[in-house]
This record gives sequence, C-alpha cells and structure tokens, in this order.
Amino acid sequence: MTVQVLNGPNLGRLGLREPEKYGSTTYPDLVELLGKTGRDLGLEVQVRQTDDEAEMLRWVHEAADAGDPVVLNPGAWSHTSIALRDALAMLTARLVEVHITNIHAREEFRHHSYVSGVATGVIAGLGVQGYVLALHWLSGQADT
Amino acid sequence: MTVQVLNGPNLGRLGLREPEKYGSTTYPDLVELLGKTGRDLGLEVQVRQTDDEAEMLRWVHEAADAGDPVVLNPGAWSHTSIALRDALAMLTARLVEVHITNIHAREEFRHHSYVSGVATGVIAGLGVQGYVLALHWLSGQADT
Amino acid sequence: MTVQVLNGPNLGRLGLREPEKYGSTTYPDLVELLGKTGRDLGLEVQVRQTDDEAEMLRWVHEAADAGDPVVLNPGAWSHTSIALRDALAMLTARLVEVHITNIHAREEFRHHSYVSGVATGVIAGLGVQGYVLALHWLSGQADT
Amino acid sequence: MTVQVLNGPNLGRLGLREPEKYGSTTYPDLVELLGKTGRDLGLEVQVRQTDDEAEMLRWVHEAADAGDPVVLNPGAWSHTSIALRDALAMLTARLVEVHITNIHAREEFRHHSYVSGVATGVIAGLGVQGYVLALHWLSGQADT
Amino acid sequence: MTVQVLNGPNLGRLGLREPEKYGSTTYPDLVELLGKTGRDLGLEVQVRQTDDEAEMLRWVHEAADAGDPVVLNPGAWSHTSIALRDALAMLTARLVEVHITNIHAREEFRHHSYVSGVATGVIAGLGVQGYVLALHWLSGQADT
Amino acid sequence: MTVQVLNGPNLGRLGLREPEKYGSTTYPDLVELLGKTGRDLGLEVQVRQTDDEAEMLRWVHEAADAGDPVVLNPGAWSHTSIALRDALAMLTARLVEVHITNIHAREEFRHHSYVSGVATGVIAGLGVQGYVLALHWLSGQADT
Amino acid sequence: MTVQVLNGPNLGRLGLREPEKYGSTTYPDLVELLGKTGRDLGLEVQVRQTDDEAEMLRWVHEAADAGDPVVLNPGAWSHTSIALRDALAMLTARLVEVHITNIHAREEFRHHSYVSGVATGVIAGLGVQGYVLALHWLSGQADT
Amino acid sequence: MTVQVLNGPNLGRLGLREPEKYGSTTYPDLVELLGKTGRDLGLEVQVRQTDDEAEMLRWVHEAADAGDPVVLNPGAWSHTSIALRDALAMLTARLVEVHITNIHAREEFRHHSYVSGVATGVIAGLGVQGYVLALHWLSGQADT
Amino acid sequence: MTVQVLNGPNLGRLGLREPEKYGSTTYPDLVELLGKTGRDLGLEVQVRQTDDEAEMLRWVHEAADAGDPVVLNPGAWSHTSIALRDALAMLTARLVEVHITNIHAREEFRHHSYVSGVATGVIAGLGVQGYVLALHWLSGQADT
Amino acid sequence: MTVQVLNGPNLGRLGLREPEKYGSTTYPDLVELLGKTGRDLGLEVQVRQTDDEAEMLRWVHEAADAGDPVVLNPGAWSHTSIALRDALAMLTARLVEVHITNIHAREEFRHHSYVSGVATGVIAGLGVQGYVLALHWLSGQADT
Amino acid sequence: MTVQVLNGPNLGRLGLREPEKYGSTTYPDLVELLGKTGRDLGLEVQVRQTDDEAEMLRWVHEAADAGDPVVLNPGAWSHTSIALRDALAMLTARLVEVHITNIHAREEFRHHSYVSGVATGVIAGLGVQGYVLALHWLSGQADT
Amino acid sequence: MTVQVLNGPNLGRLGLREPEKYGSTTYPDLVELLGKTGRDLGLEVQVRQTDDEAEMLRWVHEAADAGDPVVLNPGAWSHTSIALRDALAMLTARLVEVHITNIHAREEFRHHSYVSGVATGVIAGLGVQGYVLALHWLSGQADT
Repeated sequence: MTVQVLNGPNLGRLGLREPEKYGSTTYPDLVELLGKTGRDLGLEVQVRQTDDEAEMLRWVHEAADAGDPVVLNPGAWSHTSIALRDALAMLTARLVEVHITNIHAREEFRHHSYVSGVATGVIAGLGVQGYVLALHWLSGQADT
Repeated sequence: MTVQVLNGPNLGRLGLREPEKYGSTTYPDLVELLGKTGRDLGLEVQVRQTDDEAEMLRWVHEAADAGDPVVLNPGAWSHTSIALRDALAMLTARLVEVHITNIHAREEFRHHSYVSGVATGVIAGLGVQGYVLALHWLSGQADT
Repeated sequence: MTVQVLNGPNLGRLGLREPEKYGSTTYPDLVELLGKTGRDLGLEVQVRQTDDEAEMLRWVHEAADAGDPVVLNPGAWSHTSIALRDALAMLTARLVEVHITNIHAREEFRHHSYVSGVATGVIAGLGVQGYVLALHWLSGQADT
Repeated sequence: MTVQVLNGPNLGRLGLREPEKYGSTTYPDLVELLGKTGRDLGLEVQVRQTDDEAEMLRWVHEAADAGDPVVLNPGAWSHTSIALRDALAMLTARLVEVHITNIHAREEFRHHSYVSGVATGVIAGLGVQGYVLALHWLSGQADT
Repeated sequence: MTVQVLNGPNLGRLGLREPEKYGSTTYPDLVELLGKTGRDLGLEVQVRQTDDEAEMLRWVHEAADAGDPVVLNPGAWSHTSIALRDALAMLTARLVEVHITNIHAREEFRHHSYVSGVATGVIAGLGVQGYVLALHWLSGQADT
Repeated sequence: MTVQVLNGPNLGRLGLREPEKYGSTTYPDLVELLGKTGRDLGLEVQVRQTDDEAEMLRWVHEAADAGDPVVLNPGAWSHTSIALRDALAMLTARLVEVHITNIHAREEFRHHSYVSGVATGVIAGLGVQGYVLALHWLSGQADT
Repeated sequence: MTVQVLNGPNLGRLGLREPEKYGSTTYPDLVELLGKTGRDLGLEVQVRQTDDEAEMLRWVHEAADAGDPVVLNPGAWSHTSIALRDALAMLTARLVEVHITNIHAREEFRHHSYVSGVATGVIAGLGVQGYVLALHWLSGQADT
Repeated sequence: MTVQVLNGPNLGRLGLREPEKYGSTTYPDLVELLGKTGRDLGLEVQVRQTDDEAEMLRWVHEAADAGDPVVLNPGAWSHTSIALRDALAMLTARLVEVHITNIHAREEFRHHSYVSGVATGVIAGLGVQGYVLALHWLSGQADT
Repeated sequence: MTVQVLNGPNLGRLGLREPEKYGSTTYPDLVELLGKTGRDLGLEVQVRQTDDEAEMLRWVHEAADAGDPVVLNPGAWSHTSIALRDALAMLTARLVEVHITNIHAREEFRHHSYVSGVATGVIAGLGVQGYVLALHWLSGQADT
Repeated sequence: MTVQVLNGPNLGRLGLREPEKYGSTTYPDLVELLGKTGRDLGLEVQVRQTDDEAEMLRWVHEAADAGDPVVLNPGAWSHTSIALRDALAMLTARLVEVHITNIHAREEFRHHSYVSGVATGVIAGLGVQGYVLALHWLSGQADT
Repeated sequence: MTVQVLNGPNLGRLGLREPEKYGSTTYPDLVELLGKTGRDLGLEVQVRQTDDEAEMLRWVHEAADAGDPVVLNPGAWSHTSIALRDALAMLTARLVEVHITNIHAREEFRHHSYVSGVATGVIAGLGVQGYVLALHWLSGQADT
Repeated sequence: MTVQVLNGPNLGRLGLREPEKYGSTTYPDLVELLGKTGRDLGLEVQVRQTDDEAEMLRWVHEAADAGDPVVLNPGAWSHTSIALRDALAMLTARLVEVHITNIHAREEFRHHSYVSGVATGVIAGLGVQGYVLALHWLSGQADT
C-alpha cells in the first residue's frame, strides 16, 4: 500500500518556524522519520510539501485516481480552503488529518477546519509523532 | 508509568450503542485491548468508565495528585462540562483527548470541546484504535 | 407494555416549587395519577424521579435494553445535557418529551431542548395532564 | 363548549403531502376523526383549513369574540407570521398549538414558533393524534 | 390632495385588542377622527384597513399610480413583509409609517421594520394621535 | 408538456416598477414573450401572477397534482414564505426559480431564498430572458 | 406647562451640517420656530443644546425634579449612552424622542436607540417639523 | 440564623488548584475561617462542598425548606447548570453568589452565570474574603 | 464576439467527481459542447480550467483588457476568494456566474458567493446546460 | 491609606432614582455612611460623584499617580466607556467595582462591564452595603 | 496651512501610561516633536489633548469651519463615540486617524473604529512617528 | 538595509483598476517611486508583485531568512489568507501593512485583516504615498 503524506503551506519551514510551538524537528527530519516508519510498517510512503494550492489539488486528484490513503497536514488551508475540501471529498481511501499543534487550544480562527468534515479522523497536538501514529493506524486498517 | 484511561457517559454501552457509528467493539473488549496494549508497551494502564460526573472529577483529581498521564474520552461532556475542564487543568502530566467518531463531521454542537483547550493533543475518528495510538504516543513521550 | 415515566432534576419538588408556574399537584400526587392512568389503560407504568444525571442515564439504558417506551420530563437537563440526548438516542421504542410549563413562552435559554431532536414527540404547557396525554398516546400506538 | 380547530397552509393536502413525514390520514379523515372525538367528549368541534392568512385572522378574531378555545396547527406560518401571533394574543380562552411532525427535529428554521409564545401549550410530533389529545385536554379543562 | 391612510392586520380590532396597550379608541372612531382631521386640513383622507396582504399591495399600487401620499400603519407586517416594502418603494409621494405603540420598547422582534427603510418618516408610540400628526405633517409639506 | 410560469407579488407591475432595476418590459410583454417562446419550443406555457399567497399556493398544489414543471419568480416571498417552500416541496416535476435582478448583489435580506432549498435550479440577474432560458432548459430536459 | 426641548451633540450645527440630510434650517431658526410654536400652543418651551453629556444629564435631572415633559433629540447619544437612558428613566412626565432624519433608513448602527426603550414615543425623519409635532402632541395630552 | 455555605465542583481542591489564581488557602482553612467568622457574627454557618450536582441540588432544596440564606460558590456550574438555577429559584431567603477569582476578567465562557439571574448579589475576585464579606452582609441584613 | 468560459478548481475532474451530484459529462465533453454551442451562436468561445488562482486572475485580467464577456464557474473559490472578486470587478463586459449544482440547496458555507456581488447574473443547479444558457444569453445581449 | 470612592453618572440621584431598585439611602447618606466606615477602619475615604466623564478620568489619573486604591461604581459607563477602562488600567493599587443592583439580573446590555476586565474584584446587588464591604476588604488587604 | 492635531482621552498620560505599550515619549515630548516637524514642513501645527468629549467636538467643529485638515488620535473614543464620527463627517479637509499602538492586534473591542469610516486614511502601530508621518503626508497633499 | 516591498493580487493592475478608487499611478510608476525613495533614504528597496500565493509565501520566507523588514500590501489576501499570516509570523524584522484605500471605509468583509494581527503597524487610505511613509518609518527605525 502506498500512503501519500501531503503537507500544506509553511510546513517546509518546520524546525525553523516558531520551534517552541512546532518543535525542532526539521522538514527533512520529518521526511526521513516517515520514510523509516513506512519501511518498518511495510508501507510505501510518499512525503511531499507545497505552498501552492494548485499543486496540492493535483496531488489529491492523483491520490483519488490511485485509490491511495492520505495523511494530510493542511496547515492554514484547513481553515480557508473549500477547494481543498472538495478535492479531498473525491478520495476513495482513508484520509487522516494531522496537525502538529493542538489547533483547538490556539486562536479561535484555527478551531474550524473545512478538512475535518471529509476526513476519516483527526490527530492534533501530538507533534510530528502525529504523522507516525497516522501511518500506524492506516497500516492497521490495511490489515482488515 | 501508570496511565489513566477514563471514559465518560454512555461509553459503557460501547458495541451496543449505534454500532454503525461507534463500531462493534464492546466496552469489555476495549478494556482488554488496552490492558494488552499496556502490557506490550510496559505501561500500567487503568481503564475506567462512569456516567457520574462527580466520579470522573474524583478520578481526575487522583490522577493530578499522582502525576499520571491521562487518556480521556469525555463523551458528551466534552461539549458541556466546564467542571471537567477545570479539573483537567490541574493535571501535571500529559492529557490526550480521544473520540471514537470524528466529532468534527457530526452535528454542529459536537464541534466544540471544552476539554481540547486544556489537552495536550486530540485524536478523533479513528475508532477504538484512537486509544491504542494515545497509549503508544504517551509511551514514546515517556522515553524522552 | 411497560412504560417508563422518568423525571429529571427538581421535579421531586413538584407542588412545592413555584406553584403559580407548575401547579399544586405534588410529586406523590403525580405518581398516583399516572399509576391510575396506567391501570385504566392497561399499561404498566413505572414513575421515577432523580436529581442525579448518572441515575437517569442508567434508567434510560435499562429502558433501551428492555425496549420500553419512555415518557420523559428532562427538566433543566433538556437545555444542557448532551449525555442524556446520547443515551436517549439508543432507545428503540417511542419517546415522548413532556414539559409541565410551556418552555417556549419562558426565558430564551429554555427554548432549545437537546432531547427534542431525538424524541418522537413533545408535549409542553399542559400541566401534569401532559403526562396523562402521553400515556394515552403511547397506549394508542400500542394498539397499532 | 365549542372548540375551533384551525389549520394553516398546505394542511388541506394532508395525506397527499410527503406521507412518510405527515402520515396517510387525509384531511377529510382528520375532519371526521375530530368530529367523532368531539361527539365522544361532548364538545362542539369546528374544523377548518385555509391557505389564506386573512381568513385565518378572521377565524381567530371570531374565536376571540366568542370566547372559544382554539386548537391551532399554524403550519409554516408558525415561523413567519407575527400577524397571526398578534391575533392569537386576543384570545381569552385556551390555545393549544399542534404540529403533526416534531418540528424540533427538523430544519433549524422550524425550531422557532411565534405562536408558542402566546399559546397555553404545544403538542408536536404525535401525528394527527396530537389534535385528539388537544381536544381531550381542553375537555378536561372544561370540567374544572 | 388625497391622502391614503392604510392599516394592516388586526387593526380593525382597535379598541377591542389589548386596550391597555392600544387605547380605547375603536377603529370606527379612528376613521371618524381622521375624516374630521382631513376636513380641517382641507385634505381628502381615505382610511382603509385589511387583514389581506394582497389587498394592501393593491392599495399601495393604486396610491403609486395616483401619486398619493400614504400614511401607513403596517401592523405586524412591518417586521415580516418584504413584499409590502417592495410595493411601497414604488410610491412617488411621501410615506409616513405610524405605529400606535412604541414598538422599540416592546419585544425584540418588533424593533426592526422593513417599511422604515423606504419610508420618509416614522411616528411611534403616540397612540392614534400619531395618525393625526402624520396628516398635519403631510398637509404642511403640501404647502411647500 | 405544460409548464406553469408563476409570478409572485408586485410582478404585475413589471415595467412600471423601478425600470432602471427591473427593465422596461411590461408584464403583458412578458406574457406574450413567454407564450411565443413556448410555441417555438412546443411547450404549453401558462403564465400567471398574483399578489395573494393563498392563490399562489393553490396554483402550486395544482401543478403538483398535474405533475407540471414550474418556472417560479417568487418575488419577495422568496425571503419570507416557508408556506410557499412547503407547497413547492410537493412538486414532482422540475422547479426553476427565476429572479429578474441579481438578488445576491442587492440588500443582505434578499440573499437568502427559502425557495432555493427545494428548487432544481436558480437563474438570477438575467432580466426577463431568465424566464426564456428556464423554458429552454425545461424543454431540453423534456427531451431526455 | 413647561416643555423641555433638549438637543444632543452636533445639533448646534444644524443647517451647517450635511444640509442635504438635515435640511437648511439653522439651530437659531429651530429655537425661534419652537418658541413660536410654544406661544401658539400656550406652552412654555425651553430649547437647549449641548455637546456635553454631563450637562444633558443635569437638564434631564432638572426636568425629572420639575415634572416637565421632554422633547429630546439625543443625536448620536441615542445609540451609545446608557447613562442618558438611565437619567431619562427618572422622568415622570412624557418623553418624545425626535430625530430629524429617518435613522432607520441610515447605517445599521443608527437603528438601535437606547432612548426609545424609555420614551413614550418616537418621531423620526420628518425634519424639524418633528419637534413641532411633538409639541402639538404634548399640548394635546395636557388637555386630557 | 443558620447560613448555608455551599461549594461546587473542584473547590475541595482549594489551595492545591492553580494557587496563583485561587490563592494558597486550602479548603479546610476556608471551613475554619468561615466557622470562626460565623461565631464572631453570631451566625450558625454550615460549610459544605460537593462535586456531585445531585447532592448540591439536595442541599439547596433543604435550604429552601429551612428558609436558610445561602452563600454559594457554584464553581464551573455557574456557567452550565440550569438545574442549579432552578433549585436556587426556590429559595425564600437571600442568596449571595461568590467567586474567588474575577470571572469577568477570565475566558469568555466564564462571563455568564446562570446563577446570577436568581441571586440577590454577587461577589467576585476578592479571594476567600469574598465568603467572609457575604457572611457579614447576611448578618447585617438579619439585623434589619 | 469572444466569450471566455473560465472554470475554477476541481472542475477538470468533471464526470469523475461525485457524478450523482455533478453529472456524467466529462470536462472534455463540456469543452466540446461549448465549442459547438459557440459555433451555432456565431460566438468565439474559449474554454479553460485551472486549479491555480494566479492563473485564473491572469485570465480575468486578460478578459478585462480585451473587453470580453465572461462565463465563470468559480467552483469553491466562490465562497473564499476576494482576490477573484476584485479581479472580476475590473471587467467591462458582462459576467455570468455558473454553478453546475444548486449551491443554495447544499451546505450553508456554499450559500454565499463573493463573485455574485460583482456578476451580472447567476445560473445554478441546471447542470452543464447552465453554461449553454449563459452563452445563449450573452449572444442575445450581443444582438442589442 | 487613602481610598478613593468614585461614583459615575446619575448616582448623585441615589434615593431619588427608582428607590424600589436602588433603595432609599440618598447620596448624602452614602457619603456619611462611607465616611463613618472609613473612620472605623482607620482609612481616609474620599467620596465623589460626577456625571462628567472627563472629571472621572481626572480622578482616576490622580488615584493612579497617588497609588490609591479605588472603589468605583461606574454606573452606566460600565457598559460603554472604554476610555474609563483605559484610565483604570493605569492604577497600581487595587480596584473594586461596586454596583448597587445585581446588574446580571437586569437587561442584557447591563451584563457586560468594560471595567470588570481591569478590576481586582466586583460586588453587585448588595445595595449600598456593597461599598462598605469593599472598604472592609481593602482595609483587610492593607493589613497584609 | 494649519493642521489640527487632536488627541482624545488618556493621551495626556503618554509616557506614564503602560510605556511598554505606548512608548516612553511623554505628551510634552510629543507636542514638541510635532511642533518641530511642522516648522520643518512649513505647516502651522496646533496640538491639543482633551479627556472631555464636548471639548473635542468643539475643536472638530472649529476645524470644520476653518477648513483645516485634522490629525486625530481618538483614543478609546474610536470604538464608542458616534458623536465624534458625526462631527468629523462635517470636515471638508483631510482627516488622518492615528493610533500609537496597532489596535488590530489588541483586544477584539479595539478592532472597530467609528472614526475610520469617515477618515481619509489611518496609521496605526507606528508609535508617535505615526503623527509625524501624517503631517508629512498632509504636507505632500498640500503641494498638490 | 534591504527592505522588501511585496504586493499581492491584482496590484500589478494599479492605475488600470478602478482609478477613482486606487488612483492613476501605475504599477511601474510605483516601482520607480519606491526605488527613488529608497535611494533618497539610503535603503535598498526591492519591489515585487505576484498574484500567486505560493510565490508570496516564498518571498516572505526569504525575508524571514534574511532578516529583512517588509512593507506588504496583501491586497485581498488580507482578509482570507491565514497561510500568509503564518508565514509573516516568522519574520524577525518589522512588518508594515499598507493599503492604498481606506479598507475600513469599504465593504464589511474588508474590515478584518489577518495580517494586522502579526504586523508592527498599518497604513491605509493614503494612496501610494502610504508605501513611501512606510519606507521613511523603517528608515527612521533603522537609525535606532
């Protein structure tokens, strides 16, 4: 099983951006961590990041065509992009929404996510381990 | 490390209650699953459920005194109990809020949780595996 | 057919509490009235009251297990308890929500009831006769 | 005692209109049922329906002049007609608002009724039996 | 100059309806009072009342065609009828909105009037003298 | 196929009413235009207008009974009449809602239409050609 | 009878301020007009204006002590001053609130007046004649 | 005179719970302080705390029966429990609501208290001395 | 006359995406249909789609420069992009907003469109025929 | 220690103003009562009242400069004056906000106080004794 | 050209008041700085401050009469004074609103300014240099 | 010091777009003006514009890495892009938000800017001179 791990705007700056909030793991560290986790779980994990909504939509369209499950950290688009929600609604496999921080304990405008309404589940506030847990969960579901 | 897994109202009915929404795992199955997960992870896991808010507050007070991390499925109290939030704010160890269903994709009145504002992180919509992931994550944090 | 007549907080004070609003029938009078009504209709009527939400949830769980129809006066919990709503959603038989006063003509915060969304029907403002009408209606449905 | 049973817009279509929601009783069936109920209770029951708000206001004015109690199913006007509310506020006898469906479990815009604020009581969601119960209740009140 | 004095729903009941709020002047008294006022001012005053929105719209259309100024007590339609507002927007002469009671000191839902947005001016709370003042004002404007 | 073209309040004033907003086509012009369009398309087109909600409801009931598609310009009732919405929900054929002006670019209170929720589609802001397009579309659907 | 005519902030600029909105009558013209009106009606009319809220409160306190009726144009304080409302609530004689423009047809923030809730009546949009009408009305009431 | 001092959820944790917010006085210290204050004032002071809403309701019912004044710190129930408000509305003696912290300077959801609407008065933000002041005040009222 | 038909995000997936909602016509089918319609009407029709907002803005700028009318299906950007609205406000020719589905009968967040406020007209819910009607209408306007 | 007791608009009318709400103690009585309380407590108490916001701001500035604690009854300015709040934020000593009536049980617009957000504590509904309690409390704090 | 620099409530306390927010420049420093800036730019700059709204209104009236441009720091009145807005609307020359702090990054109630709606432009958050920039800008406009 | 002047969507159209609102300065004029201003001030000024949010984010990331201050006209993204806000929050040097028009005096939806919450200051409504002032201010800060 191939899992698409897709990251939205500013996440390429991980480790550089407000580390007291997002932790010190850099984006390359994250890619490596998830690659290793994938190998341990026997999953093919493809990790990508973009600040370009059009590119993100294309990746989601491809995942929809391929029937791949998706782990998505939509970043700030969670709260503003209905286009992304519409693309995600076309997925046929599972979608896990991941947020590194606990968005529910931050500013009011981060409490609502358009993505959550079409996601299978949500993990927030558990740092980069949130991605790892999402992969574990998808792997477990694959067993079913 | 002892982890308190605390469950709020109606969760004793798991498996009986709207199984198309909550799955067929019964509450005793859940207790067993988490016991086993704990043993695998080397954690002492104490799983309890109550429909009585006073009892829940007492358990949270005890966890605060003991410094135990908590995995909490607050059920419907998420949306209505500020008393529970206040008790949880006294915890010194980590708190993971778990919801079996994706509350963000359900009725509007389930989108806001008073608990989230004082939780470390939130896992929703991943079924009873959400508890398992929470234990894994706490276990990993313990390593730190 | 057994019908569960369940009463929420402060209803044990009936007749004592703001009689100009709730009437002079006392709670024991109510129990007697409904017992008599049940006998007339050939229904087994069990009338209970509690100020303890956990106890109410247990009674609702029992009614769900027994398949009994329920006549419920949720009192103030109507407006605040999603836990009660969730328990009631498990009922398989009919649920009639009864309010002694016309809650729609009182304070704004009494206009919304979480219970109504999962009830079969609602009777409000007809005094303690509201319970009697509910029993009559359930009895008529039983004939069908 | 004469009781006015007044029905608002679209209720002449009963039995034809969304029967899965409103039941299969037709409007003529309803008239007959209430006539029979009236005879059993020793009440003179006058059942009327109109799609014309002016006609409804005239009927309410007449009931106010005659001092007749009213059983009213205001249909969609519940949510929009302050003129009807104002007319009803002139009634000197009791007013029971009846809805065939449980309006509280339907669309948000059906949750508020301008009529309820001036009604004695409300019965909703008990089908056409709601009218019958209202007559029973008025009959009982007449005994007092 | 002909002035149309138009009255909306329930105003035919003046003097009968909640006299502590609306005063003891009856509708025929009002017609006579305004007739006399008109004669004193040298105005042709036509006073009409209807509970039928379609009739009201027709009267407004006629006033628009005739270029007559209008004194309108829209009653409860103030708060609910955009159709009436749209008709009034076609008037070419002045429009004075009159309310017998001070609607701003009553229920919240009476505070907004769709009519006010297209009226020249508004008089509220001065009893039936409000109509008289409106005629005086129109008469004075005519002098200009 | 017979198509009912129904027009709500104030639309009989077309061409007279705010022509800079609604254009100079008069209502008789509209009737003729739609008659001609119908003949071109081989449709029987019945064009009617009323300021009387009860009459409109009757026409909708008839269309429901006949299974006729409807082109409806609800005028101001769009924003206020749930009774009209309820009647329209009984239609079995297609319903196209037409507005001569672009209601979404006008006052806030014109942005929401109760009719849209039960319509097949909506055309707004294209002037009286909006009706013509609606007939063309219905005609095309009839081909299917 | 002495009538206090009190004017709030910026009204001393009448005739200078946005004359297309407030007309060309200057404040001294207004004082003269009301003086003359008073003499005609046999009323002692005292006309004052202030931009100073404390001074306005003092005038209202004096009117309360003297039992004088008040004609008040509160200007912008209508929408913001609860202190003024509280002072006005102490009046024992009648209070007529006057606005030169139709505040209900202007910006949203001018639609609510704290004064209206404690006024006997309101006149808006009839220009400076609104004051004259208010005096006439008070004069008529005095006759009673 | 007996005064009931009733404390709601989490208040048993006083001194342990967020001492920077609630101070270092422990709950036993509070009980002792109030006992001493009572003796000084010649009042019989009964101090109790519960996390159980049903128990709180019972205590309020008893105070209502006994005619005892109540000093109540409802804790988080202030903001959520209408059942508590309803019970308190039955009190015949005075009710003083006390909050240790200034709830108006904390989170938005702590700004509204259901209890305040039925309380005689409220003291907030003055620490545990708030209780002492409440007793002094009740004592003074008793003198009257 | 050249008409720009511009399509926003996810519309390239037409026919693949939720066909029960959007129909089975694919995007290439749509391009062909509109090309043919253009030829029939003697219009030069340029059909484009993009998931990239910057590209869409550029196309709108070009249409503004060329003075071309635009048929725009903004997709999800309708509800979120003020940048698109600002670009569209620069158009000098007509703008018809088209939605394949009836957005007014879908989720609340789809009811408001920033585009509508600057569009000439809107067609929604008539499937891909909505584009065809828009071209017909523009063609007819061109005749004027 | 000098304590500033500052009173806002209309409070000079105490005893005259709605005595059923504010009690029969006059403002001079209040000054005397607080003077005496101050002497008993060994505090220098300066009691002032103004209807002039600028004067109030000056007094607050002086208290800020002197480091005096303040007992403030802001009257209606509580709900409207951010300028007052800003001045109070400069105080370095304690601030107790006092309201004679229970503002939380009055009109909705009195429930929010801009002052509370910068006050140490709040006393409401305990009549003029509220001031006395505030002085006692400040005196006790001074002991610390 | 004379420029009026007007400062609202509490600004006389500049340098004393929350210096971490407002900076250490005192009000006399500000006056000097602006005087010097004016001399450099060849502008006559009149700098005044008041805590008295009536005085501020008078200054604005004078500026309106003189046709002077205004640099205004309305302080807290920005958010509450419609009277000030109304006075400013009479200005014929330019108005620049200046805030020392970035009000958009502070409490919610500081985000809306009644002044902005009638200002030419707004400068916020640039400290006392904001005034200097405003003078530079006005000077540049004068060149035009 | 290098200052980044970044411009968001549609700003490349300056001078072409609604010149009555945005002025007649074209975008190339602006680039030249700011270049010259920079040279006068001894600043290196880099002026760029994009309609592509991804490109804007990249520029902001670069400015964050370089520690450059930023002058940003976010255009319509002000009101909708949380991604842009998140990127800007990473800046370590000053950020001045510039709007050519006074957004606070335009449509409601332009009153809130996500950028303002993370900006040092805001300049709006002063035309293209707003950019010049921002550069002057940054230059002055650099002196510190």
